[in-house]
Amino acid sequence: MTQAPKIKHALSVARDGDFAQWYQEVIAEAEMAEESGVRGCMVIKPWGYGIWERIQSVMDAEIKAAGVENCYFPLFIPLSYFAKEAEHVEGFAKEMAVVTHHRLIGDGKGGLVPDPEAKLEEPLIVRPTSETVIGAAMARWIQSWRDLPLLTNQWANVVRWEMRTRMFLRTSEFLWQEGHTAHADRDDALTETLRALEMYRAFAEDVLAMPVIAGEKPENERFPGAVATYSIEAMMQDGKALQAGTSHYLGTGFAEAAGIRYQDKEGQQTLCHTTSWGVSTRMIGGVIMTHGDDDGLRVPPRIAPQQIVILPMLRDTDEDAALLAYCEELRAALAKQSTLGEPVRVLLDKRPGKATQKRWTWVKKGVPLILEIGGRDAAGGQVSALRRDRLYREDGKVNFVAQAKDDFLSIAAAELADIQQSLHREALAKRDANLVQGIDSLDALAAFYGEDKRYPGWVELNWSRPTGAELDAVVNKLKSLKLTIRNTPMDSEPVTGACIFTGKPAVERIYVARAY
Amino acid sequence: MTQAPKIKHALSVARDGDFAQWYQEVIAEAEMAEESGVRGCMVIKPWGYGIWERIQSVMDAEIKAAGVENCYFPLFIPLSYFAKEAEHVEGFAKEMAVVTHHRLIGDGKGGLVPDPEAKLEEPLIVRPTSETVIGAAMARWIQSWRDLPLLTNQWANVVRWEMRTRMFLRTSEFLWQEGHTAHADRDDALTETLRALEMYRAFAEDVLAMPVIAGEKPENERFPGAVATYSIEAMMQDGKALQAGTSHYLGTGFAEAAGIRYQDKEGQQTLCHTTSWGVSTRMIGGVIMTHGDDDGLRVPPRIAPQQIVILPMLRDTDEDAALLAYCEELRAALAKQSTLGEPVRVLLDKRPGKATQKRWTWVKKGVPLILEIGGRDAAGGQVSALRRDRLYREDGKVNFVAQAKDDFLSIAAAELADIQQSLHREALAKRDANLVQGIDSLDALAAFYGEDKRYPGWVELNWSRPTGAELDAVVNKLKSLKLTIRNTPMDSEPVTGACIFTGKPAVERIYVARAY
Repeated sequence: MTQAPKIKHALSVARDGDFAQWYQEVIAEAEMAEESGVRGCMVIKPWGYGIWERIQSVMDAEIKAAGVENCYFPLFIPLSYFAKEAEHVEGFAKEMAVVTHHRLIGDGKGGLVPDPEAKLEEPLIVRPTSETVIGAAMARWIQSWRDLPLLTNQWANVVRWEMRTRMFLRTSEFLWQEGHTAHADRDDALTETLRALEMYRAFAEDVLAMPVIAGEKPENERFPGAVATYSIEAMMQDGKALQAGTSHYLGTGFAEAAGIRYQDKEGQQTLCHTTSWGVSTRMIGGVIMTHGDDDGLRVPPRIAPQQIVILPMLRDTDEDAALLAYCEELRAALAKQSTLGEPVRVLLDKRPGKATQKRWTWVKKGVPLILEIGGRDAAGGQVSALRRDRLYREDGKVNFVAQAKDDFLSIAAAELADIQQSLHREALAKRDANLVQGIDSLDALAAFYGEDKRYPGWVELNWSRPTGAELDAVVNKLKSLKLTIRNTPMDSEPVTGACIFTGKPAVERIYVARAY
Repeated sequence: MTQAPKIKHALSVARDGDFAQWYQEVIAEAEMAEESGVRGCMVIKPWGYGIWERIQSVMDAEIKAAGVENCYFPLFIPLSYFAKEAEHVEGFAKEMAVVTHHRLIGDGKGGLVPDPEAKLEEPLIVRPTSETVIGAAMARWIQSWRDLPLLTNQWANVVRWEMRTRMFLRTSEFLWQEGHTAHADRDDALTETLRALEMYRAFAEDVLAMPVIAGEKPENERFPGAVATYSIEAMMQDGKALQAGTSHYLGTGFAEAAGIRYQDKEGQQTLCHTTSWGVSTRMIGGVIMTHGDDDGLRVPPRIAPQQIVILPMLRDTDEDAALLAYCEELRAALAKQSTLGEPVRVLLDKRPGKATQKRWTWVKKGVPLILEIGGRDAAGGQVSALRRDRLYREDGKVNFVAQAKDDFLSIAAAELADIQQSLHREALAKRDANLVQGIDSLDALAAFYGEDKRYPGWVELNWSRPTGAELDAVVNKLKSLKLTIRNTPMDSEPVTGACIFTGKPAVERIYVARAY
């Protein structure tokens, strides 16, 4: 065996070095987002926003295909709406942006202050989520069983005041979609809750190429007021879990607070059963930590704003014209093709600058395929292609593959589809290698996470599904190990043995992990 | 001549009766939007939001085609950013939502109040527009001439506290796009300003089927701090003007306030020239008041969420299955077709309810083509089609046209294109009939608008383009007649004669009108 060659990677920090620092560097070098100067809020730059637009586009089509209609509800929610909720929701989160004035006025010293004359009678809350205001609309819209199910969704910005923020993962303002539905009975509402969960699971796997485990959250992790909360959980490359989407069955509690009733077929006024479900820009953080490597981001083709970038090696000579014409022809031929159900997205990057510098810019952005075309390639009808997921050869050199243009054109669409699959396969192998079974006592659990493992992964346990005080004790024990329960997977088969927490017979599987 | 038949229209209020009330009724009956219970904010319902999604989709493609990249900037802007602007902008608008606290706390009486412990050191403003925060980003992003032009856009919600609100036309929160660009010099910035203006003009005419006059606003109507403001102005069916989009050349003033400088080719630090341009959900108000009639909304096919609705006349009998199969086949055949550059959007409405009731629901929503299919139509291979823009026959009956299914399929796409054109033609004829020329004195102007005309339209005048105090006098005179100057059309030919305001030689045309 020859020794692996030493590669100088494009980033200054490696995943194995400082994962958190690596994450920040990927975002900066891929030009995805940056701090805005406004506390806890980020500026999402074109490459990051382009990924969000792709997520929106694919997810929105899925949402519409399920018969859900998009609406838009107010940014502001009167304080009294929350007071109503706070009455019956113990875990009510109070960190929210509060609007108290509607005018600025000069302070007489050249500055501006909120005008004391323009104080609002009732403060307004910037929506942290829209259950209350959408619930009020549902109460107006629903009269009889004929109006059910009522299926609504909105794409919006929401604000939750966060003390410690991290770009995409936890920001005070973030972008999301929130589905809100009302149903005649429990069965129909639960079916919708699980439909949304399955939509998210399939989206994460097929579109983001991000393996997830879909399952039910334990009682202590439920959305405040929910009867059941389900999530998709993804394993990041540091072994931690990321909750990447949630779907809630809310029972009749929210309907009761908002007065969402319908006349059933027997003429009785009946409470609706409601659901809500959402995913956010947090998903982009998951994509980074699932697929990024020490050379930057790698974007799965289905959400890549550009799937192929063509870099002409311009020399400021007369030959540039012929080279550009060749590249433009290549671009047009690729743009006519389809892959993964959509037209190929291809960019001819004619901006000034050295081709190799531009190459590394695109490597760090994670564009799936990079084509470098020199004058000789153009003259010889060649294409030199680099797959972002196979960046280096065994000898450590950058893995450009030269081939005849027509040959490349005949495989380009399949190559992109293969990159999509390959990223998923790679992530799945990493995830599965870090799902740990066979830990059969609390001591073994403590020992496992106590070892100096950088990426300990998740532990799969059978438990007795304790509730109340018994559950609190489990949660506190796990907390002392910096662990949380992620979920009970949906595909859970019957289990045997004893619960390592309670000693009672185990009834289902759970995953415990460190988490974002 | 026979007497015109008396038609009982679908709305209770006619345009000729009470235009403002008619406008509200169209919105309610078409289920486009409603009051939210939150002061000045509306809920945009699926049909209204579907139109906005169509507007976004077409406009976004235009914006991207111009090389402009979408970003997302924070909802909140620190107060100090505005203080900077207020220093040099006299017309600075101060009606804005001010966030002063970041937490709620129980008041000890079962209610919630802003937590005094969680008062922000610096209040945050909910963005009324994003010049300041985007300017700060541009100052970070732009180093040299190579970074120019910098072309950004965002789709976002903005808030301007309004005392008197009207749905779509003026709401405290509204949805819009705001383009912000930075350029090396005046010429390049002005070219971009006018490109955006022309994009809006063409969009209004070709997509919204709404005739507009594109031109420059007078000095007193400029965006505060702008060097030049351009607009598109549409005439509503009550003769009033609606400003439906604006584009601003901002000179170097905003660049100076935000520190947007670049190193030019000679190595000098130079101020950028910036622009901004936007359209909003206000456009939907324009569509309603341009195309609506006494039976509700009429939506131009290019922005119709559904272009064709198929209504099966179900009878709860065994024959329904064959009827539904026939309708589904028809739907599938139409969905495969394209019109106006996109796949046909067609809905088979299988919801319970009488077909005639459902017909009038869709008439009021303004869907361009309605197909009613009964059992006999299905058996005979027939289709009965109603064009929303030709709702009644001369005898006052609803204008359904029966034809063989294959015949209908062969003309459906062309029919939609014809409706698009026909709505534009109709609106253009109305507009042009209400552009008044030949008024040659202030007295004549006062007399014209003093007459008891319900829809007086716009008056075209030649003027000397006064500035400063001389312009103020003109504006005040017009204000006393409840008139405003709309704009100086871009296609202005050389004018002759004297300005009716100043007596000086006229240099250009302007339109004066009552306005929203």
